[in-house]
Parts: sequence; C-alpha cells; structure tokens
Amino acid sequence: MAASTASRLSPPRLRVPSLSPHPPLRRSRFSPLRAAKLEAVLSIGTHLIPHPRKVETGGEDAFFVNSDANGVIAIADGVSGWAEKDVNPALFSRELMAHTSTFLKDEEVNYDPQLLLMKAHAATTSVGSATVIIAMLEKSGILKIASVGDCGLKIIRKGQVMFSTCPQEHYFDCPYQISSEAIGQTYLDALVCTVNLMEGDMIVSGSDGFFDNIFDQEIVSVISESSGVDEAAKALAELARKHSVDVTFDSPYSMEARSRMDDITVIVAQVKAVVIPDDEGVDEEKGQGTEPGSAVAVATSEQNEG
Amino acid sequence: MAASTASRLSPPRLRVPSLSPHPPLRRSRFSPLRAAKLEAVLSIGTHLIPHPRKVETGGEDAFFVNSDANGVIAIADGVSGWAEKDVNPALFSRELMAHTSTFLKDEEVNYDPQLLLMKAHAATTSVGSATVIIAMLEKSGILKIASVGDCGLKIIRKGQVMFSTCPQEHYFDCPYQISSEAIGQTYLDALVCTVNLMEGDMIVSGSDGFFDNIFDQEIVSVISESSGVDEAAKALAELARKHSVDVTFDSPYSMEARSRMDDITVIVAQVKAVVIPDDEGVDEEKGQGTEPGSAVAVATSEQNEG
Repeated sequence: MAASTASRLSPPRLRVPSLSPHPPLRRSRFSPLRAAKLEAVLSIGTHLIPHPRKVETGGEDAFFVNSDANGVIAIADGVSGWAEKDVNPALFSRELMAHTSTFLKDEEVNYDPQLLLMKAHAATTSVGSATVIIAMLEKSGILKIASVGDCGLKIIRKGQVMFSTCPQEHYFDCPYQISSEAIGQTYLDALVCTVNLMEGDMIVSGSDGFFDNIFDQEIVSVISESSGVDEAAKALAELARKHSVDVTFDSPYSMEARSRMDDITVIVAQVKAVVIPDDEGVDEEKGQGTEPGSAVAVATSEQNEG
Repeated sequence: MAASTASRLSPPRLRVPSLSPHPPLRRSRFSPLRAAKLEAVLSIGTHLIPHPRKVETGGEDAFFVNSDANGVIAIADGVSGWAEKDVNPALFSRELMAHTSTFLKDEEVNYDPQLLLMKAHAATTSVGSATVIIAMLEKSGILKIASVGDCGLKIIRKGQVMFSTCPQEHYFDCPYQISSEAIGQTYLDALVCTVNLMEGDMIVSGSDGFFDNIFDQEIVSVISESSGVDEAAKALAELARKHSVDVTFDSPYSMEARSRMDDITVIVAQVKAVVIPDDEGVDEEKGQGTEPGSAVAVATSEQNEG
C-alpha cells in the first residue's frame, strides 16, 4: 500500500479521470507544442561567504551565473589540500569558472553542461582540483545538470524538495574532483541528468560548505519566507554560516565529525515564464538565444552579488 | 573549500590534463558517436512481498517490467485507504500497470514515461488511486523517469548511491497519487527527469514499503554481495521485510511513527552493453526495437518473479 491517504481525501465520487482519450502531447507549460511564445528563464541570486580564516583572500569557492541564455549556474569548490603543497587552492576553481563562462556559447559545447565542463577543464592550466556543478536551463523548462563531487543542487516545488543531486566521493571526505592531475576525475565521471521544471520552481545550488550546514526543511522554510532570489541566497548563506560556527548545532554532517567551517556559496534561481514576440522563439533550433553581450558574472567573494 | 583531499592524493605532478583541445563529443560508451553498434540494455530482477495480513490477496503493489525495448520498469502502489470505502485498493494499481504494458509501444507515447503514465491513467477505469513510477532506458544509456508520489528509484555506481528520486507528498503520510478522482494528481504533476547511465550501473526501484525499511548503505551492501539481479531483488526485499517487523530496528521512517509493515516491491536492474549487428541499431530513429512479442511481465505477488 501507499501510506493510507484516501481516507483523508473527500469521499470517492466514482468518476473516471477527466483526461480525454487523445489529450495534447505536452509536458509542461513551456512546451512549444502548447505555447510557442512562452519560454522558461531563471531569475538568479547569489551569495558567497568565505571561510572565516580566508576572508582576506576570498576563499576557494568560485561561481558563474548567466541570466541570459535562459539561465546558467555553476559552482567550483577548490580542494584545500593543495595549500599544503604551496599551491593556492583558489586558482584552479576560479580559472575553471572563467573558462566555463568563455565556452558557454561554444559550438561544440552545444549547450551541454557535461561538454562545457570538458572544454573548461581542458583549458584550465592552473595546478589544483575542484568539485564542480554546472546547470543550464533550456527554454522548454528542462534543466540540464553535470556534477563532479559534492557541490549540490536541489529543486523546491510547492514547499518540498522534489529533486536533489547526490554527492560522489571516493571515501569519507575525499570527493570526486576535476583536477590538474591524471589521478582526478573528468567530465566522463560526472553525474549527468535533467529535470523538467515548472514555473515557480526554485533551484538552490551550493558548495558542500553550504549543504553540510543546513537541513532541507530549513532551506524550504527560508525560501518560503524570502521575497526574492537575492534575499533568499543571502539568508540561506548566513543561516549556514551561523550553524557552521555553532558547536551546539547538529548539522547534517556533524555526526560525521567533519570540520564544518568552510567557504559557503549559495545560488538561488527561480523559474519564470517570459513571453517571446511572434518572430522569436519559433523555428529556433537551440533557442538559447545568440545575442552578444550576455549578462555574465564570474565571481568569487571579492565580487559578491546578492 | 572542498573537503581537504588533495593531501591524500599522490603528490602533484604538475601536469596539464590529458584532454586534447578537440576531444570527441561523447557522453558515455553507449553514444552512437563512439560506437554505433553498442546499446545499453537492462537485466532485470524483481521481488514482491505482500503485507503480512494481505498475503492471500496479494497486496496492493503491482509492477511491470520489460526486458525488451532496452528495458522498462514500473511500480504502482495502491492507496490502502480505499479499503475503508469498500473498494479493493489493488484494482487500481493493477489496472494501471496493465495499461502501462499495453501502451508501451503506442505511437503517441513515443517512449516517454510521462506520456505513458498519461495514457495508462486515462485508460484506467477502476476506482482508487496509486503512487507510481515508470522508468525507461534508451539505447544511448539515458534512463527516463516519471514519478508521482513516494515510489522511489536509486542508481548505484561504484559502490555509492549517485542518484535518488525524492518522494512527493501533500503532507505527512499523504503522497501525491494518480487517482480515479479529480482531486488526485495527473501526469502533469510527475517528477520528470533523466539520468545518463553507464555500463555496470545498478538501478534499485521500489515501493515506499521497501525504502521506508532499508538504509542506502544496506542497499549498496546487498547489491555488492549479490551474484545477480534476481538474487539482489530477493535479498533486498527480505531484508526490508525483516526490518519492517523488527520493533527494535531504527528504520528510515521509524522516527516518523509510520506503520512500517507494508507491501514490499523491489526491482533491481543492471545496465549492460550489448553489441548490435551492423544492419541494426544504425539509422534507427528510436532504437527501442519494434519486434513483436516483447518479454513483458505485469505482476503482483500472485506471479512473483525473482
């Protein structure tokens, strides 16, 4: 059985479903079959709080967002162990995100986050490694995700987490990582998936420093109380930071004895529907828009937005 | 930072990634760009254990698997509250699964699990409701999933859960459900997503009676110790059943005071690569195979396999 629930519904009315035998073949309100002029776009807010001891250098998280091209979000979290080898762990993650921006509209990438990761990785010459997540929205409302390691992405719909990525790790505290070294992972090791989004869905993506310090129900609660994506991103990052320095707080990872103080990056994106004029959005193969001058932001905490 | 990990890797060798500037555009070993003759298929094992008090009637879970057409798995879990209204809760879930089988190769469905759910729902005339999950593998290795409610699906790769669906519910113990009543959900409310699979990946899908009574690390452990999908499905179902009647076991849901005794359905599928002869698998639009006489199984516990 599923949990006993029908008893809580109104009494059965003994009617058959109202679906016609040949309903239109559509998936969401963004489907071109239903409304050629409606496209899904992301409204994006970001917030980064560096590790308390790394405020001056900006920490080792980097991110990239692009509100143009229907919406792109990406986070790279530099592996801090490189500092023990006199390598600045922030260089790799920052360069990786810069190349992610550069190759966004590359023809070979073809708006595929896994191929974008491949290109950005191949172009990165800094020594180091990073966990990374890239998510790109199609105008149809399909979010494409590629993730290596323990950056995360959750989707909140109608007050509940309805999708969540899983972290990948070799063993405790050693996540999969894109690396300058052959021992690291590549785009071929990425979790690659898609999710069909609906208008109003909220995307919450972050580094492990965020998700290690906040519970799902807290994320849902903050999202419901925030008036916009900027406010939500800031409130979520600050709540995670507060938990990370509170030794009495039972965080999701405190049971695993992981050090909870970390760089905290949060990206919040809301799925919106925009109307496209008649002469656009139709017969467009990719539909991600090809206008130059996209609203691109590659950021570390030095240029925090939110 | 990502968890400090580089210190556990071999010393940095200061080499750039080995990717060429123009690597082949491929996603997995199943990509037609790499090997036109290699297709992904599922090897499937199933096991269903009815609620102890429903052994004679077979319980209210039903499932459908098809090892042909690259692989299809589906589970429907009848909402038990209907029994209080003198409706057999098993009728709806069984009929829904029967129609899922019927419409599998329907032209309009086009191998889309959400559209298959739409068609099967529209054809179901029994009174009742059910949570449901449908997953279909493409020959390219992409698994397409549509889920309404709290049936679940996890993917295990290299000894860890790398993908997991999230349950959808209106409130505690009241899952989203496909229903004969207008108050229920439809295919439009489904979580719709895809995951790119690799050879060797294991899919574990089940009703809430399974996932409520077993932890992820137990699933991973049983999978690693089993010699095949049939053995794995049976071992997983029996472990969940054992936990469900063990009042001393802290199950994933025992903290929520949910009654843990339930129908337990488990489907285990392994992703395999098969070589397709030269004159097949090329220039084939869909690639799911159109041969009649597919190996179809629609089952309740009355015809348990595994």
